[in-house]
Amino acid sequence: MTRADERKADELRPVDMQADYLIHPEGSVLITVGQTKVICTATIEEKVPGFLRGQGKGWITAEYSMLPRATGSRNRREASAGKIGGRTMEIQRLIGRALRAVVDLEKLGERTLWLDCDVIQADGGTRTASITGAYVAMVMAISKLELTAFPVTDFLAATSVGITHDNGAILDLDYSEDSTAEVDMNLVMTGKGNFVELQGTGEESTFTRAQLNEMLDLGEAGIRQLIEKQKEILGDTALRIGEETRSEL
Amino acid sequence: MTRADERKADELRPVDMQADYLIHPEGSVLITVGQTKVICTATIEEKVPGFLRGQGKGWITAEYSMLPRATGSRNRREASAGKIGGRTMEIQRLIGRALRAVVDLEKLGERTLWLDCDVIQADGGTRTASITGAYVAMVMAISKLELTAFPVTDFLAATSVGITHDNGAILDLDYSEDSTAEVDMNLVMTGKGNFVELQGTGEESTFTRAQLNEMLDLGEAGIRQLIEKQKEILGDTALRIGEETRSEL
Amino acid sequence: MTRADERKADELRPVDMQADYLIHPEGSVLITVGQTKVICTATIEEKVPGFLRGQGKGWITAEYSMLPRATGSRNRREASAGKIGGRTMEIQRLIGRALRAVVDLEKLGERTLWLDCDVIQADGGTRTASITGAYVAMVMAISKLELTAFPVTDFLAATSVGITHDNGAILDLDYSEDSTAEVDMNLVMTGKGNFVELQGTGEESTFTRAQLNEMLDLGEAGIRQLIEKQKEILGDTALRIGEETRSEL
Amino acid sequence: MTRADERKADELRPVDMQADYLIHPEGSVLITVGQTKVICTATIEEKVPGFLRGQGKGWITAEYSMLPRATGSRNRREASAGKIGGRTMEIQRLIGRALRAVVDLEKLGERTLWLDCDVIQADGGTRTASITGAYVAMVMAISKLELTAFPVTDFLAATSVGITHDNGAILDLDYSEDSTAEVDMNLVMTGKGNFVELQGTGEESTFTRAQLNEMLDLGEAGIRQLIEKQKEILGDTALRIGEETRSEL
Amino acid sequence: MTRADERKADELRPVDMQADYLIHPEGSVLITVGQTKVICTATIEEKVPGFLRGQGKGWITAEYSMLPRATGSRNRREASAGKIGGRTMEIQRLIGRALRAVVDLEKLGERTLWLDCDVIQADGGTRTASITGAYVAMVMAISKLELTAFPVTDFLAATSVGITHDNGAILDLDYSEDSTAEVDMNLVMTGKGNFVELQGTGEESTFTRAQLNEMLDLGEAGIRQLIEKQKEILGDTALRIGEETRSEL
Amino acid sequence: MTRADERKADELRPVDMQADYLIHPEGSVLITVGQTKVICTATIEEKVPGFLRGQGKGWITAEYSMLPRATGSRNRREASAGKIGGRTMEIQRLIGRALRAVVDLEKLGERTLWLDCDVIQADGGTRTASITGAYVAMVMAISKLELTAFPVTDFLAATSVGITHDNGAILDLDYSEDSTAEVDMNLVMTGKGNFVELQGTGEESTFTRAQLNEMLDLGEAGIRQLIEKQKEILGDTALRIGEETRSEL
Repeated sequence: MTRADERKADELRPVDMQADYLIHPEGSVLITVGQTKVICTATIEEKVPGFLRGQGKGWITAEYSMLPRATGSRNRREASAGKIGGRTMEIQRLIGRALRAVVDLEKLGERTLWLDCDVIQADGGTRTASITGAYVAMVMAISKLELTAFPVTDFLAATSVGITHDNGAILDLDYSEDSTAEVDMNLVMTGKGNFVELQGTGEESTFTRAQLNEMLDLGEAGIRQLIEKQKEILGDTALRIGEETRSEL
Repeated sequence: MTRADERKADELRPVDMQADYLIHPEGSVLITVGQTKVICTATIEEKVPGFLRGQGKGWITAEYSMLPRATGSRNRREASAGKIGGRTMEIQRLIGRALRAVVDLEKLGERTLWLDCDVIQADGGTRTASITGAYVAMVMAISKLELTAFPVTDFLAATSVGITHDNGAILDLDYSEDSTAEVDMNLVMTGKGNFVELQGTGEESTFTRAQLNEMLDLGEAGIRQLIEKQKEILGDTALRIGEETRSEL
Repeated sequence: MTRADERKADELRPVDMQADYLIHPEGSVLITVGQTKVICTATIEEKVPGFLRGQGKGWITAEYSMLPRATGSRNRREASAGKIGGRTMEIQRLIGRALRAVVDLEKLGERTLWLDCDVIQADGGTRTASITGAYVAMVMAISKLELTAFPVTDFLAATSVGITHDNGAILDLDYSEDSTAEVDMNLVMTGKGNFVELQGTGEESTFTRAQLNEMLDLGEAGIRQLIEKQKEILGDTALRIGEETRSEL
Repeated sequence: MTRADERKADELRPVDMQADYLIHPEGSVLITVGQTKVICTATIEEKVPGFLRGQGKGWITAEYSMLPRATGSRNRREASAGKIGGRTMEIQRLIGRALRAVVDLEKLGERTLWLDCDVIQADGGTRTASITGAYVAMVMAISKLELTAFPVTDFLAATSVGITHDNGAILDLDYSEDSTAEVDMNLVMTGKGNFVELQGTGEESTFTRAQLNEMLDLGEAGIRQLIEKQKEILGDTALRIGEETRSEL
Repeated sequence: MTRADERKADELRPVDMQADYLIHPEGSVLITVGQTKVICTATIEEKVPGFLRGQGKGWITAEYSMLPRATGSRNRREASAGKIGGRTMEIQRLIGRALRAVVDLEKLGERTLWLDCDVIQADGGTRTASITGAYVAMVMAISKLELTAFPVTDFLAATSVGITHDNGAILDLDYSEDSTAEVDMNLVMTGKGNFVELQGTGEESTFTRAQLNEMLDLGEAGIRQLIEKQKEILGDTALRIGEETRSEL
Repeated sequence: MTRADERKADELRPVDMQADYLIHPEGSVLITVGQTKVICTATIEEKVPGFLRGQGKGWITAEYSMLPRATGSRNRREASAGKIGGRTMEIQRLIGRALRAVVDLEKLGERTLWLDCDVIQADGGTRTASITGAYVAMVMAISKLELTAFPVTDFLAATSVGITHDNGAILDLDYSEDSTAEVDMNLVMTGKGNFVELQGTGEESTFTRAQLNEMLDLGEAGIRQLIEKQKEILGDTALRIGEETRSEL
């Protein structure tokens, strides 16, 4: 069976990243992956949370939210509910953790990077689009700091893979695929091809090691393409990524 | 003295409204007023709040929010703070009240219209841009309902006027003007030129009746122009607005 | 048609202010306007909120609340609900803003004035009675500070005006009038006759400029009478109000 | 040593109860005990909480609050804090429990009595004054229900007793006595002289059985006087209290 | 009538205290009273709350909680509800107050003792078991501090007494007795036989002074036995309790 | 280098499960994994959440918490903080999702299983111990329902694997290993050897596919041993697990 939008199993949806989308933030990107659209902004704050104070290290943290009508039916705002839901918390912790894996926090210095990912339209893959877009916003903000050593050590992008009843293992699930998938996996990888995070879940279902390997192959190839896109957007700044690690060799 | 952006005292900033900006909502508009950008969406819910149940009348309510980096420095999310601030409450109550003034809630039938106004970039006048944009999103959503009598009774738009030390009474203040104004007034008016809401505040200052009249003159003229824009966007749907009132004559 | 309590359109309800109503606060007034009763207290705190620290300026802030049975049916306490409602927020922001317009915050020095307005019985006009009463409590508290320059620059009082179907424009609406009024406007004005705040709202209705002017005329006259009452209560202290402005001339 | 206000060890402060203090509630009393003033209101709601529904029994519940400046320094409102403190909870649970002990909830029928006790001025003994005053407000509200059997089975009043370093066991402590007392005890008793509630606490101190007995003697005598006051206020309604129990004999 | 578990009116349930139950806390006890089981832990924090800072005095505070299935039907977690209930607040305030009565806070020095009482199985008397167990955990934690003067001035234990329809006055009520008792009283007493806290409540009922005395006699005897158990568990540390008071003689 | 507790890289810590640990719950287990101790209870509620009502399907949900002194320093209670932290949310969502993967919710019928996992002592691996223990408590509770078809389709257990600087890939990390690990992975697998959930995270680090495979091998072997333990505890009930799937073949 073919996928609803005629894509092949190993094909990403069209991806676009519009840099400097907003005038105020130190870095901002509107990332579009198929019909999914996320505004990613990076803010630099010249202080760190209490647990890091005085250690000369920086911090990176993320917040994630969806507009009420990013989805087919209206979701109640978390501000109205008075608390942040479990899904939101999980996603914003994931984004922050992922970004921290490719930044040398000591070279960043005692400051905090806030990455805000606001989904204005959702069609599956909002958390992986958020990571891929937030990475670019973050690099843009960092490049405006006048740092002697560039603290970003590698590229970073994310995508989803899954197993559906009709099409087996597929790359980059849209909402209709995601909501019927038997297995759903999010992958975050670096430019060197290493894993940063891998979260696979059987949805009232399970999966074998062979299926795992099939999904990992699809995911790796997809992430390689996303990182190519990031390089295009970042232009010359891309050349600075990992320069410190190379120079240390 | 001339205004920072060379505008005349009675000149609006450039206004644009992009209809059907999102795929999911029943109505959606991205309104741009100068550098201020607000996503307005309209959602139709087929039930009413408890206090209206069983009366055959509909309800219109609004929610307002800003992305954390809509502004020059990052604002803490209200969802993280666990509560909605006073300014936000004031604005969303104003938006809802204003829209209800031009809709015959009985003709709307027992359903709720949710208007979500999410500011993605702020440069003054976010609440008045929200009203002007939300009105269009609302009319678009209502026009998709198959109602025998069109419940929208009139056009509705809003703008700000104020008094600054350097330029006296001016129309449509941007952020830099608003933050130094001595008097700040928001006006909501209908297509017939009647007031729906008028809120004038001396900011650690006061104003005379003559100044009030000067501001009202500027505001009326500005709102007339905004309503012309709304008519363009709405096209044929604009013709249905107020038709019921006319036919009742 | 005559008003339910036989008042003329331009007639205030009986007003009384009982000064030093409580033993603990630095200033306290029980204000009675018809059947509406509000306890207004002023507290002096020798520090300012974070955003003002170190600037040598003071701050004035207000809180407003109703006893559960201030009204015909019992309202749930906001403390039980765990959050402050939008109406309360709107009112307490209005009271604070209004009072700040007639106090020179630099002459006040680095301290905060807290004005607490607790409605023990409500019959319309609770927010305007709160402003009128809180002004007196505030002046009493300030007069106890040994300041070289008296920081209160003018008198301040508030009332409501509105348009009802049966009686047209009227002054000082009680609850039964307020709940059926087509237009409802709150006015805050100074002893010099300037506006501090003006908030007019069509309740699922609109109003013309001629109606606006009619309401403003009624309001101005009403406020003039309220300020006469304040002068009586304040006695000699009233003479100090605005003395600084006069001496600067 | 004599007490600061010249009272004898076994002497109550002057007590006054102003019935029908407010126009809206079904019952209302302003109780004054020395400088302590509490507004007690009774509201009848024609339904019961979920756990009692359908059992033909009524319920009695109380809420207690202090105005921010009821005390020498300003207390933050619990509504602003977003939660009710432990002391408030303890007191409102005590008031409700005490009142339920003298009402036959089956004879009350499936309705809830809300007793709101709002302290407008505090000088010690606010919880016991609340019970004594709320009892009267409650009886007044119940007497307006047209019930065939009067559900109030006995009188009820409360006072405090304590042990101070200088004066030994004393009755009805004011704030200055309460804050230095070694032992503090609240007593709630009925017209028949039985205990409903007795709460004695050594404040970083302890007490002997002999001291306990001395305090109980003082408390009993004080409560007898308070009940006399209640009978005066209630007039003929007082005659109905306990009539059912008597008729059952 | 005999009690359900064949106990005599003046008989405690079997009591056990397992010291050093957990590896991390400075003091820990699993106390078992019949089927009631409570984990009590003591934590030493080297700072005091704001209101005590700089006075050279320590502080003791307690928190109390039940596992959701400590009881016959599942209770919602207070963390999920987002707030602590009135009953929990009352109990944790009681535990803290009781412990403070037997510790010389000046000799403790500027540090806070946190006593956490977590009920893992409930069958009546959880608050009194918490006090009895927390006392032991507290003494163990204090004995690890190298203090020149031992700050614990006396032993402390708690039990419940009550009056039931079938058995009159009884000691140490289990859940089935407690839920049908007419009067319920909690007693906290010291090794010297003095009262620290006494809370008696008629549950929709009242009690006479003779009944009070009967309950106090039962309670005193029960507490004496509990203190004997504490001495066994504490071994040599028990000898240090009150040594300061003795040496001051 | 050898591990601190002399374990081999592929060695689990000692595991114990004490069934029927508490008297009230429908199923209860105290699971001990090394020094980690978790009380797991299962509660059956005869209704389902709103989104499932009327579909004839059941639901399984989990809650997770730690006692304040389960850890080396005291953690603030989430009930006191008034909200549940992100880590707790993530864990309780994981536990619920994992258990649902091995239960046929239609055969369970319209009821909810609540699994409460309360950590009384933590030394690493609390979430995986919770899953392994909660599975047993759940099966015990289900076996008390008189269901014609046994809804549990397979065994389920969880463990952690990781990569440390000194010892490379290791199984079942204790707290000291976990806090210094470069990669941390949680695995949930079934009796048939399939994955239910796999979550691997580079902690400010990354990992290769070869390292992933090494960790998966260790994890599979560890989980096989845990499932053997579960079979011992469950005795005859273990024979019913998966019987439906087998009979459907």
